[in-house]
Amino acid sequence: MNNFTFYAPTYFVFGKEKENETGAYVKKFGGSKVLIHYGGGSVIKTGLLQRVKDSLDKEGIEYVELGGARPNPRSGLVYEGIDLCRKEKIDFVLAVGGGSTIDSAKAIAAGTVYDGDFWDYYEGKPIEEALPIGTVLTISAAGSEGSPDSVITKEDGMFKRGAHGEALRPKFSILNPALTQTLPQYQTACGVTDIMAHLYERYLTNTKDVEVTDRMIEGLLLTMIHEGPKAVADSEDYESRANIMWAGMMAHNNSCGVGRDQDWTSHNIEHELSAVYDCAHGAGLAVVMPAVFTYNMEHDVMRFAKIAVRVWGCQMDFEHPEVTAKAGIEALRNFLISIGMPKNFEELGAKEEDIEYMAHTCCYGDGGNGTVGGFVTLKQEDVEKIYRLML
Amino acid sequence: MNNFTFYAPTYFVFGKEKENETGAYVKKFGGSKVLIHYGGGSVIKTGLLQRVKDSLDKEGIEYVELGGARPNPRSGLVYEGIDLCRKEKIDFVLAVGGGSTIDSAKAIAAGTVYDGDFWDYYEGKPIEEALPIGTVLTISAAGSEGSPDSVITKEDGMFKRGAHGEALRPKFSILNPALTQTLPQYQTACGVTDIMAHLYERYLTNTKDVEVTDRMIEGLLLTMIHEGPKAVADSEDYESRANIMWAGMMAHNNSCGVGRDQDWTSHNIEHELSAVYDCAHGAGLAVVMPAVFTYNMEHDVMRFAKIAVRVWGCQMDFEHPEVTAKAGIEALRNFLISIGMPKNFEELGAKEEDIEYMAHTCCYGDGGNGTVGGFVTLKQEDVEKIYRLML
Repeated sequence: MNNFTFYAPTYFVFGKEKENETGAYVKKFGGSKVLIHYGGGSVIKTGLLQRVKDSLDKEGIEYVELGGARPNPRSGLVYEGIDLCRKEKIDFVLAVGGGSTIDSAKAIAAGTVYDGDFWDYYEGKPIEEALPIGTVLTISAAGSEGSPDSVITKEDGMFKRGAHGEALRPKFSILNPALTQTLPQYQTACGVTDIMAHLYERYLTNTKDVEVTDRMIEGLLLTMIHEGPKAVADSEDYESRANIMWAGMMAHNNSCGVGRDQDWTSHNIEHELSAVYDCAHGAGLAVVMPAVFTYNMEHDVMRFAKIAVRVWGCQMDFEHPEVTAKAGIEALRNFLISIGMPKNFEELGAKEEDIEYMAHTCCYGDGGNGTVGGFVTLKQEDVEKIYRLML
Repeated sequence: MNNFTFYAPTYFVFGKEKENETGAYVKKFGGSKVLIHYGGGSVIKTGLLQRVKDSLDKEGIEYVELGGARPNPRSGLVYEGIDLCRKEKIDFVLAVGGGSTIDSAKAIAAGTVYDGDFWDYYEGKPIEEALPIGTVLTISAAGSEGSPDSVITKEDGMFKRGAHGEALRPKFSILNPALTQTLPQYQTACGVTDIMAHLYERYLTNTKDVEVTDRMIEGLLLTMIHEGPKAVADSEDYESRANIMWAGMMAHNNSCGVGRDQDWTSHNIEHELSAVYDCAHGAGLAVVMPAVFTYNMEHDVMRFAKIAVRVWGCQMDFEHPEVTAKAGIEALRNFLISIGMPKNFEELGAKEEDIEYMAHTCCYGDGGNGTVGGFVTLKQEDVEKIYRLML
């Protein structure tokens, strides 16, 4: 196991109707003038935004609003948010929405107290400080409610990049599984896929002797396999959504990723797809993961056999472990198809003629050094071959 | 799943030689004059205490020392520590040792800033504040390095009771698995048993639809079954101790216990044993757990069958689930015996003639209401029968 530090000081408030306590938690963590950041009309339509505002009113907390955050959140709105926060002397950023809204809020929170261009952080500059952030989560997927991460798409060039820093961890996150019940089936399935991807990206490691985090990841994946289809099939099922919501946070707060090298190949390769086609991140991952794992399987057949046996219930073929390893990848692919995810470029709306561009951007774009991947070091020609496996 | 809040803001520093950074972390969390609290001579003998003091010197941090914390830590030393902290105007309590030392340090930290008798907290008074606490952990067992809990034995009457409060969560905990390599085999096995007990106490619940926490607990138990015997057999094996150390923290920081009722019967019944005979807590739990589970099995046969199949690899007997449930309890008993734990009263040094007294104290002693247990409500006569199963 590698040495590590782990610090996850987010206060989680989990359960039904907890959004009505938002104001009290903003106060607890020192906010007096808040930017409420949200996405499209759904938080208005469902009355969630109004309930959050009522809870702020109740505590006498001032606020201004900035809507318009969207999937694959854009730099333009971040600049707008930063200007607004400075002008209004905002001291707390509250995200009401899913991972994209939260990521956009994190960028605004960091950018507001930084003299330079916030995009510097997405090119690798360490983040020293940010305005305090709170979240009211509406989609179980990105894990941004408990993570120190943010992913933003730069409109000039459509680069999708991530920034990291402890200052980006929310002070509090309100997790009410019932808020996810208004999501369409497809979005629920995209969230399930994203959570599973966060677990696979950590599972695929070259670090030896990491049984404790292996077992935690396996347990969370088994949870997703058990609960995911129930949540997709029946939006009335509160309990499956509650299990998924906690699993989604645990999958990405890194308690199951400490002390081990991680992969993140699938995320990097997917980021090009959602940057170019603006597809849902989870849908892109559903197409990308089986291709990446098939390409990388030879690198460590026993690790793929282990997840096949322990998570997918495959029988171990002791004479031919590669048969088991492959069966595990097929089981993942079939599971994702069963919950309604696309399986190839065509279903995703991606095009063969863009492969070379995407492979190049993935490896060389905006700060890239020509390779990608923590588990296997891949060059542009490898990434091209992986995209071709998705045709 | 039940509603819950979860807040675990301890900064963990994990890995080899990390104790040499203690001073920097005391400084980071605002300490300028420290009480170093430790146990017997082992931290002196191994040079650990000196390394910690050197790291404080390096940062220019003053300190006073209080040794003498012992297994089943006593109230007398807590009072002494409180007096010392007040006299010396201490602003940070640093525990160097195992769970007993940390629990004692927590009691001192809370008692120093409280006007009344610190024992009030152990009789249920909510803990509002405490001096900040840091830990350098030397035994994987109690999980106190990441928990809001402390257990102290009151010398007047030998009552062993727990206190809880967010203020008791350490600001930082330094986890160097190599520091546990000097432990005797027996103590290592006691720690393994205690960690497994923390997982069972959470697993045994009447709350429905808690797959995510079930799966996390199962994963951590599987880790202990895989790594425990290796650590007991070979003190040179750093990796097994690293896995156990993180599992021990995760088992008790409650991320796998949220949203579900918990049991804690075995701990309550064991506390009487270690209060009366001063046996190691883990050794007591090894004798108590199979007896409690056998007695309570009928309450929810399928839950015991589930852990038997998923954790102990038992075959499910679909016609007779109680056969599987029982096989899982036997597998636990045999595992504990295999790592050197006692299996009955005789091996533990306990006596049949004390059963009635212990059952009475367990149910009625010092604030008790006549019953014990979160999974099954047990009366004194039930507890007596459970003790008799240990003969």
